[in-house]
Amino acid sequence: MEKFTVQFIPYDTSIEVSAGESLIEAAMDAGVHINASCGGGGVCGKCRVVVEKGESVCEQADKLTQEEYDGGWRLACKTEVRDNLTVRIPMESSALKGGELPPVMPRTTARIRKMDFEALKEEGLFIPPMEKVYVELPPPDASDHSADVTRLFQHLKNVKGEEGLDIDFSVIRKMPKVLRDGDFKATVTLERPVKDGNKSRIINIQSGDRTDFNYAIALDIGTTTIYGQLFDLKDASVLGQYGKVNGQVSYGEDVISRIIYAEKEGGLERLRQVVVESINDVVGRLLSRSGVDMEEVSTVAIAGNTTMTQLLLGVDPRNIRRAPYVPAANVYPPLSARSLGIYLAEHTTALIYPLISSYVGGDIVAGVMGSGLYRSEKLTLFIDIGTNAEIVVGNKEWLACTACSAGPAFEGGGIKFGMRAAPGAIEDFSIDPVTWEPMLRTVGGVRPRGICGSGLITAVAVLFENKLVDSRGKFNTDLHTPRLRESEGIVEYVLVWADDTDIGRDITLTEPDIDNLIRAKGAVYSGCETLLNEVGLSIGEIEQIILAGGFGSYIDLDRAFTIGFLPEIATDKVVFIGNGSLMGAKMSALTNTLRQDVVQVVRMMTNFELSETPSYMDHYIAALFLPHTDLNLFPRLKARLSGA
Amino acid sequence: MEKFTVQFIPYDTSIEVSAGESLIEAAMDAGVHINASCGGGGVCGKCRVVVEKGESVCEQADKLTQEEYDGGWRLACKTEVRDNLTVRIPMESSALKGGELPPVMPRTTARIRKMDFEALKEEGLFIPPMEKVYVELPPPDASDHSADVTRLFQHLKNVKGEEGLDIDFSVIRKMPKVLRDGDFKATVTLERPVKDGNKSRIINIQSGDRTDFNYAIALDIGTTTIYGQLFDLKDASVLGQYGKVNGQVSYGEDVISRIIYAEKEGGLERLRQVVVESINDVVGRLLSRSGVDMEEVSTVAIAGNTTMTQLLLGVDPRNIRRAPYVPAANVYPPLSARSLGIYLAEHTTALIYPLISSYVGGDIVAGVMGSGLYRSEKLTLFIDIGTNAEIVVGNKEWLACTACSAGPAFEGGGIKFGMRAAPGAIEDFSIDPVTWEPMLRTVGGVRPRGICGSGLITAVAVLFENKLVDSRGKFNTDLHTPRLRESEGIVEYVLVWADDTDIGRDITLTEPDIDNLIRAKGAVYSGCETLLNEVGLSIGEIEQIILAGGFGSYIDLDRAFTIGFLPEIATDKVVFIGNGSLMGAKMSALTNTLRQDVVQVVRMMTNFELSETPSYMDHYIAALFLPHTDLNLFPRLKARLSGA
Repeated sequence: MEKFTVQFIPYDTSIEVSAGESLIEAAMDAGVHINASCGGGGVCGKCRVVVEKGESVCEQADKLTQEEYDGGWRLACKTEVRDNLTVRIPMESSALKGGELPPVMPRTTARIRKMDFEALKEEGLFIPPMEKVYVELPPPDASDHSADVTRLFQHLKNVKGEEGLDIDFSVIRKMPKVLRDGDFKATVTLERPVKDGNKSRIINIQSGDRTDFNYAIALDIGTTTIYGQLFDLKDASVLGQYGKVNGQVSYGEDVISRIIYAEKEGGLERLRQVVVESINDVVGRLLSRSGVDMEEVSTVAIAGNTTMTQLLLGVDPRNIRRAPYVPAANVYPPLSARSLGIYLAEHTTALIYPLISSYVGGDIVAGVMGSGLYRSEKLTLFIDIGTNAEIVVGNKEWLACTACSAGPAFEGGGIKFGMRAAPGAIEDFSIDPVTWEPMLRTVGGVRPRGICGSGLITAVAVLFENKLVDSRGKFNTDLHTPRLRESEGIVEYVLVWADDTDIGRDITLTEPDIDNLIRAKGAVYSGCETLLNEVGLSIGEIEQIILAGGFGSYIDLDRAFTIGFLPEIATDKVVFIGNGSLMGAKMSALTNTLRQDVVQVVRMMTNFELSETPSYMDHYIAALFLPHTDLNLFPRLKARLSGA
Repeated sequence: MEKFTVQFIPYDTSIEVSAGESLIEAAMDAGVHINASCGGGGVCGKCRVVVEKGESVCEQADKLTQEEYDGGWRLACKTEVRDNLTVRIPMESSALKGGELPPVMPRTTARIRKMDFEALKEEGLFIPPMEKVYVELPPPDASDHSADVTRLFQHLKNVKGEEGLDIDFSVIRKMPKVLRDGDFKATVTLERPVKDGNKSRIINIQSGDRTDFNYAIALDIGTTTIYGQLFDLKDASVLGQYGKVNGQVSYGEDVISRIIYAEKEGGLERLRQVVVESINDVVGRLLSRSGVDMEEVSTVAIAGNTTMTQLLLGVDPRNIRRAPYVPAANVYPPLSARSLGIYLAEHTTALIYPLISSYVGGDIVAGVMGSGLYRSEKLTLFIDIGTNAEIVVGNKEWLACTACSAGPAFEGGGIKFGMRAAPGAIEDFSIDPVTWEPMLRTVGGVRPRGICGSGLITAVAVLFENKLVDSRGKFNTDLHTPRLRESEGIVEYVLVWADDTDIGRDITLTEPDIDNLIRAKGAVYSGCETLLNEVGLSIGEIEQIILAGGFGSYIDLDRAFTIGFLPEIATDKVVFIGNGSLMGAKMSALTNTLRQDVVQVVRMMTNFELSETPSYMDHYIAALFLPHTDLNLFPRLKARLSGA
């Protein structure tokens, strides 16, 4: 993608951005402040800047006169970067404090690591569990009456070196016709064994040569969202992606409420049907949009947390929420997708990701596999953040894991104006350190409707660094700004005035909201700390942090350190992998080696139950501050705060 | 069973019979003649005899005066043997020829060999493929959160030495509840692998100790009849037997017409449903009559010919009837009975008997296994007689087989008054060599309605030995008896006059009937001869003949030799095994060794297609005589005929 440089004056700072980003995004990333209240919708007209060098076009410039426009004035939120620009931020848009410019704090985003399928290919690991083999059999005649299956087996043995095969009954059923329709030229799909030495199994037969058509679907069954990806097993190329809300959300937001529903009469079956419907919607769209014939889909690789897995499989989850928290199984055999209700071909095989424990599920194992952690030399801390946070530490030699309940705050739950990261959610935020006026950006660049998890972290971090909020999460009510107020006994900060919103009400951030966030981040931080403690490590020894989860991809790393959400570590040691569960699921359909390895990984991973680790509560209480009772754990932040 | 001796005078012959047999049966077995026209119903009143010694009671003696009764007169057909008796056959009931008594020819029945399950047990072969194992697991607690499946696997490994197990998904699904309902005491059903070294598989789990309850059902799926047997896997004891007509008979009498029907739109599915309905009727009765809970039935072992097997499994059978006659498969994997539509528990596993070729099916393999032929030192000729006759020759070192179409004559098809061996079917027959008046017995001892296959063989043999029929199967029309007549150009012998029948018409045996029988027996005989020829053997080298099939159990061995149905061999070398298919099916559910052996047997058995063996037609034509063009092949018969 084409890159341009944007220089901000009077600040002595510039930033490289991708073509098409808005000037407000560029300012956010560069850490310079522009007042901006309406989230990017061009409504408030406050984000006025002057483009002094370079070509720029501002859409919907009705807040500017023609004269202003000709003079280079633009609305930063409505101006896309398509050239190298020099942009002046007028003093009215900011405020000088004793003639000094406000400090610049560029955003630190972690590197995003994608799966490197080419490397896997070069390592020779690209042998899918479901492989297609083309055969040309000698047709039967008076000298050879062998049964169809026997004929196929003999050929596979003598010509292809495939010995000791099993065969699915459904394949026998269709074989007579398939063989004759193709003049005894056919393609068989072999399911490779998990263990070397075990038998391969014939799961499908088709007339003619169909080896070029072998597809798979990876599914991440999240408590909230289901993501699917359709890809080609030849080269891992993606043919389609689709995500939709897990229909089970109507029956409870989190896994515990789902389990409680499942315990009701008919509840388990109802939840199973609902998630299967959602899956079928995802699968159906992937197929129809790509034009791939379901007959050519040999695998559906599924990863989900333990509760989602058991609900999908119709396995009673009640013991997951009852001490001592026992899942039904760690490993499930390959299953017919159709037997689960998933509308794919009769032979399409569902590979269910193995899981560790009631609260460290297949999604996490998939992340550990998909991120390559299990093959890494580096001592790694892997964190998947959602309603529950699952934490893994280790490398290719050893692995330990735990899980903690972060609560719904990261997904906007329990926050007065909290919402999911949908259009209108405030996802980025900064303030003018003098006027305390905000600059904000919403998902989709439309008028604000609320605030999402990543926006919340950023907002609290910014308010804390600017001393509007203290380390206990309380507002500094000594400050005089109309944005800080008490309403019905609750102190709150007005993020957006009603006029600039899409909902006609002031959007605020309250002290209880901050409390909720602190409890959530405290749970994650102390989970990491406790797990490291249990295995005798300190954060300084960690060589890499991998952040997984859709939510994780959007957080501003420095802001996360600021509130004490994550242990402070050099930012270049942090990588985002996005949806690790989907990534791992995809990998399991691409390389049989992984299926073999994953059983080992599940076996070698030590699970710690925080509820049974006495030190956890101490760590948790110590973490209920911004960033922590012990600021020395955050040396960079400490330096910055004392420098400010 | 109590035995009594019956002495017949004026003949110098006596016979030992079981208590309760009728005097007419005793006379039949002893080979002495009593006129008897009504089949044993006490209607014709012709079978009058005098009991001179011993106590006897004659029921329904309305054909006798009180004076006669007191004088010892009895109707032979209505007098059961309950004492040692001396019985005089009055001259009016027979006829002397020049003062000589008619020759006596006692019946030769083959030994009936039952499976010796005790011997199998002693050999240590009684390890069923589905075995129950009782476990007491340590319940989970804070120190051990293992998943339910993991807990079970660890216990099975550490305590029971069961390693590397597979598990059915359905077992995982019910495990959480089953384990807790039984306080972690449970019984698992293990399916043993066919091959040593492969994995055992957990197919069921039940709360508590259920090891004492492990049952199986053996099914013989015949083209005409379905037989089932329910038995205990502990000790092979039979808990119930039931047979019923295969509902598919409405869609065609033989396999070819079934295949033709299956080729029609929806035909295959219809035939599949129909046979499943019949099976469910058999299975349902076995369970309800015995009170066995279907949850405790772990196995249903199924044997049938190739067409019946493919129809039950819904596998298109069209290639069975088209050259080069190719079945879909020789070996089928174990299947869920319920997936086949058989109403048994979810875990009940159907073991389908492997088959050799399109016309040597699983029923024959089952017979070879059940009869012990595959473990026998003796060079054996195994014949299963039905609409098709399948012939196996060999011993434990080698095996060869073939099949020929005998046509429906043995089951009463194509015979003017032919019928199945149902009540009223003439099943035994002899004539007075002087008057040519018959003595006959029907199934159930009721008035005659027709003649069944075994009756037909006996009748033709008796007529041939008494020279009413010549070696070409033509009646000797020079003889003067009202029973021999020509009707509409067809010569026939009246077996029963209309008055004595249940159908109000004369029951006759026609020359075309005899032709049909000759073609049927010629096919079997020449099949045996051709197969022996192909493997370089003569009948003299055969050490044992095993006759299988319900029909085979009823035939009179000497009569069968007389018409040239079977190669002549010492009668003590012939054994009947009855339903070999059912016997083999039962054995496969009882001993896993057999499941291992049967794959070997299927592999080592050489199949000869008679249609591609040129000498078969010559042998067949030579066999279209009574007994054969070459009487020297039947030395005992030759001696008897020339001695007469």
